[in-house]
Amino acid sequence: MSANIGNEMYGWMRDLFPLNRSITGHGTRQTLAYIKELLPEMQIHEVPSGTQAFDWTVPDEWNVKEAWIRHESGKVIADFKENNLHLMGYSEPFEGQLDLEELQEHLYSLPDQSSAIPYITSYYKRRWGFCITEQERKILKHGKYDVLVNSTLAPGHLTYGELLLPGKSHDEILLSTYVCHPSMANNELSGPVVTAALLRWLKQLDHHFTYRAVFIPETIGSLVYLSKHLDHLKKHIKAGFVITCVGDDNNYSLLKSRYGNTLADRAAEHLLRHKHSDFKTYSFLKRGSDERQYCSSGIDLPVCSLMRTKYGEYPEYHTSLDNLQFVSPKGLRGAYEAMHDVLTILEGNHTYRSSVLGEPQLGKRGLYPTLSTKESGKYSRTMLNTIAFADGQTSLLEIADHIGECCLDLIPIAEQLCKCGLFDKVNEERLVPCQ
Amino acid sequence: MSANIGNEMYGWMRDLFPLNRSITGHGTRQTLAYIKELLPEMQIHEVPSGTQAFDWTVPDEWNVKEAWIRHESGKVIADFKENNLHLMGYSEPFEGQLDLEELQEHLYSLPDQSSAIPYITSYYKRRWGFCITEQERKILKHGKYDVLVNSTLAPGHLTYGELLLPGKSHDEILLSTYVCHPSMANNELSGPVVTAALLRWLKQLDHHFTYRAVFIPETIGSLVYLSKHLDHLKKHIKAGFVITCVGDDNNYSLLKSRYGNTLADRAAEHLLRHKHSDFKTYSFLKRGSDERQYCSSGIDLPVCSLMRTKYGEYPEYHTSLDNLQFVSPKGLRGAYEAMHDVLTILEGNHTYRSSVLGEPQLGKRGLYPTLSTKESGKYSRTMLNTIAFADGQTSLLEIADHIGECCLDLIPIAEQLCKCGLFDKVNEERLVPCQ
Amino acid sequence: MSANIGNEMYGWMRDLFPLNRSITGHGTRQTLAYIKELLPEMQIHEVPSGTQAFDWTVPDEWNVKEAWIRHESGKVIADFKENNLHLMGYSEPFEGQLDLEELQEHLYSLPDQSSAIPYITSYYKRRWGFCITEQERKILKHGKYDVLVNSTLAPGHLTYGELLLPGKSHDEILLSTYVCHPSMANNELSGPVVTAALLRWLKQLDHHFTYRAVFIPETIGSLVYLSKHLDHLKKHIKAGFVITCVGDDNNYSLLKSRYGNTLADRAAEHLLRHKHSDFKTYSFLKRGSDERQYCSSGIDLPVCSLMRTKYGEYPEYHTSLDNLQFVSPKGLRGAYEAMHDVLTILEGNHTYRSSVLGEPQLGKRGLYPTLSTKESGKYSRTMLNTIAFADGQTSLLEIADHIGECCLDLIPIAEQLCKCGLFDKVNEERLVPCQ
Repeated sequence: MSANIGNEMYGWMRDLFPLNRSITGHGTRQTLAYIKELLPEMQIHEVPSGTQAFDWTVPDEWNVKEAWIRHESGKVIADFKENNLHLMGYSEPFEGQLDLEELQEHLYSLPDQSSAIPYITSYYKRRWGFCITEQERKILKHGKYDVLVNSTLAPGHLTYGELLLPGKSHDEILLSTYVCHPSMANNELSGPVVTAALLRWLKQLDHHFTYRAVFIPETIGSLVYLSKHLDHLKKHIKAGFVITCVGDDNNYSLLKSRYGNTLADRAAEHLLRHKHSDFKTYSFLKRGSDERQYCSSGIDLPVCSLMRTKYGEYPEYHTSLDNLQFVSPKGLRGAYEAMHDVLTILEGNHTYRSSVLGEPQLGKRGLYPTLSTKESGKYSRTMLNTIAFADGQTSLLEIADHIGECCLDLIPIAEQLCKCGLFDKVNEERLVPCQ
Repeated sequence: MSANIGNEMYGWMRDLFPLNRSITGHGTRQTLAYIKELLPEMQIHEVPSGTQAFDWTVPDEWNVKEAWIRHESGKVIADFKENNLHLMGYSEPFEGQLDLEELQEHLYSLPDQSSAIPYITSYYKRRWGFCITEQERKILKHGKYDVLVNSTLAPGHLTYGELLLPGKSHDEILLSTYVCHPSMANNELSGPVVTAALLRWLKQLDHHFTYRAVFIPETIGSLVYLSKHLDHLKKHIKAGFVITCVGDDNNYSLLKSRYGNTLADRAAEHLLRHKHSDFKTYSFLKRGSDERQYCSSGIDLPVCSLMRTKYGEYPEYHTSLDNLQFVSPKGLRGAYEAMHDVLTILEGNHTYRSSVLGEPQLGKRGLYPTLSTKESGKYSRTMLNTIAFADGQTSLLEIADHIGECCLDLIPIAEQLCKCGLFDKVNEERLVPCQ
Repeated sequence: MSANIGNEMYGWMRDLFPLNRSITGHGTRQTLAYIKELLPEMQIHEVPSGTQAFDWTVPDEWNVKEAWIRHESGKVIADFKENNLHLMGYSEPFEGQLDLEELQEHLYSLPDQSSAIPYITSYYKRRWGFCITEQERKILKHGKYDVLVNSTLAPGHLTYGELLLPGKSHDEILLSTYVCHPSMANNELSGPVVTAALLRWLKQLDHHFTYRAVFIPETIGSLVYLSKHLDHLKKHIKAGFVITCVGDDNNYSLLKSRYGNTLADRAAEHLLRHKHSDFKTYSFLKRGSDERQYCSSGIDLPVCSLMRTKYGEYPEYHTSLDNLQFVSPKGLRGAYEAMHDVLTILEGNHTYRSSVLGEPQLGKRGLYPTLSTKESGKYSRTMLNTIAFADGQTSLLEIADHIGECCLDLIPIAEQLCKCGLFDKVNEERLVPCQ
């Protein structure tokens, strides 16, 4: 992989940072247009307001031209132009003059994080509001305030991107990330940029699985996508990952699927255990992103989420402090490599059967020392163990778990044994010679 | 529940304490007559001596008019009138004069508990004997002793009570308690009085299960009852409890069924873990009451025993020290409430299925905040978790175990979701709308 | 068992120690001839060189007349006559004069164990070599060395012994031990002598299982045997043991089968847990003897290995220090007794069903006290627990594990219950009265 991949992802993120993304609207469209330049095969879909998705309805589209609060002294308190977090997401249009007491009811700040602008939305109930730092709020002067929210909330569309990379198999791996938060870095842009980088790698790979990637607004976007494709997804998705919070430098986290035992969980946990052993595991009870939908009962997709620091577990989360300083090229690159490894495991996780009964004579193939000494039993242990458990029913990942080795180390061994004719690959219930 | 329930049960116990209960006889009949006043629906059954019950036979009926030992000096050593424990249970008639050495062979005392009269019986081998304190035994004088055991051992009946409270379902819950020990409190009367109080509560409840309660002599009584009703019980009993040792103030104990995994075990252990966490668990290897029969192989009823201090685990057990001072209204009330909670869990332990795919939009039903802030994910967690696992196959108790919440807290949530139309109840393999 | 059995086995071992065993050749033939005197029923088989056994081929037969290295000064450096370990196993013929530098390439020694002659072989690649102590190697003088390896490597036979002791059942227990190492005691001769002693005991026993014992060269011998009898073995072998390293005085070790859960594993682990609780368990990943073949996938025999100190886990292993001092009559006897106990468990591990519903009335059969006291519940616990779990589906060994008792204690109880008519034996799916 390119040594520069971290800087490249960080550059995309810097470009995308200022856009005013939401669950609908032009900011999300501009974000998807940028990603489409990186991945021209991506399709962009528009779903009209009012469309039903299970228990939910696509809301009106929201766009903002201008929004500010100005004290009668002329001082501007909060300006959308300066930081789009100042305006509560989905604020309805408003123009008027309020005194401080009236204004307070529309202001949001964080008493415990006095320098942070909070991120607040009200998608399904019409309101308007502004978010400011607690520091600014404390020094607000009495008097009259002019308020302008020049927004539109009107029938329009929800927009999302979808990319399919057909593989040798109809079995699919789902990569899902979201494009609905305004200027935040870890809990927003890290997801799309790492996903885009992974897809650019996959495009050049001769891959087994078909990859399905979606760049969607959280919750309503995954519900819309599921409601359109449920039968297909239930049939084909063998593993999936919600990619979010993958930009900081801290240890890895794994948010597991509902019962925590899908192929996606097992591959991700295996990689982390062997390569990044101080990771944290969170059960499904700690979920918070689109696995809420993918893993809900009746949908039951095998989806988990491999993150660096999990949303909700770092104080900068959902504030203006989740910015370009909170993430780094190194952090992005680490997460990219971890997901790269997980997908490599899934790609190599075939089921093999030893083609000979008893142990094969590795010595005559140059795979074992011909001289038997006190020590010779220690050589080729991993190869012999891989062979011992290759019964045509146990996948390479299961064997790796059983013998306590990293599956990434077993994949080249299995391929070598295939080349020697000692392994047959079991493919969809049929036994296939490897060559 | 009545605040006074503890005192009420204690009062019944005080009334019943003096009666000379055994596995047959008038003391047991009088006990059942008293309980029938509390529960007029109870049926009293009489089973003739000689009746076969699997490997056992109902023995002759035993009744006592008078029994004492008197030293030639005129001093009475042990008198049945004073404490019915003085006479070994099922003592055969005897009248005669013995010197001290001969008498010693018929005396029982406890060297390690010198102030306690032991409780001894010999149901299936004819003997006579007296039980005295070790203190008294040590000062017995030489000389002649007149002994009278004015008892009858003759064909008669074994007597037991049975109460059926039909519910909406033919599925049954069994409550089994025993009425065969003379004047002892925890390991005898606590069981019948707590069971009676539970049944008086159940009578007023609109309950799902049919409740079957038996007040029986231990071992031979349960064998008789099982041999008469085995097919019905095997078909209908979904959970059962042996109710004994439920009167002292100490921590709760759970004696588990043979493999420890029946619905009864799971409900009782769940309640204790969530509400009385310093309980003790005993495996079936520590059994000692009628679960010996209910859980024997070939019978296999799902029966466990929720106690306060388990029989055999307190020194007063099977002695005159297991008296009205050893138990308390508070102790009885605690056990009543624990069993009340266990039955409440079983009554509410339905299987539900979410009626929508994906997460329901709780906000539009007033069940979730409409304003999304850093904190909003924390609200409604228990409700969302209950929904997430409601797949139409997992019972509420299983969901509670999985999400680490007390099932008593999930029952009202499930009922609220039913009312909203978000949950359907799965009833005997059919899906039933809740309303 | 004979009090002298340890000395007897040690004597056999002393007789066999000097022979030059290998995977083929006269030393192995002489060893088998000696064992046949102990067990005249044993059959000796000869398999020609070139015979295919799965992925392997029986090699040429190797025999040695003479082999030595002599310095020009006349000093003999290594002489096969003195210790057959001096000659590398399967050394090809050689005669010539070399200077020290050339000779070094054919010498093997152990820098970390300077007084030990290592054991080295090269079965499948033609070489010659000598093994000496590091001490001797360090003081080798410059100059010319005469070398003679008067060996033959020519088409011949692989030789092994096979003994079948037919039992009441066609189900078989396999005992496998090897006869292919020259003068080494624990990791060679302890196996055949303990196996021979066990078979002499079994011959006198009225046993249930058919016993199949093989005395084979390691690896190639088990592969040959498996390739000839695979279908029969897969059908009939219910448990098997590789018997090796059973002569030292240290704690027991258990090398488990591939998944560690066969009947052989369970019986051996049960015995060790109850009688020799400071044993070590090794997973199949630590395998090193013929379980490598027996448990390979597609062969899947239920075979484990109960040892004292495992091969590879003691420094004397595969050196001249694994000699008659490293083992002892007491060590051999302990291993014999442990295997004797394991086979006793397997012989007694029947499945029983209680012939009465509910608990049987043990009192009327003299199996329970007729007087009920505070203590009487403690008597007959093991018998009552054995009855409670005897459901016609759970074997005695499974019951023993469940109730935490040693199966050796349950066997006589089950036999007593059979005699009383309280147990029926379940035999190959049919219920058989015991008498």
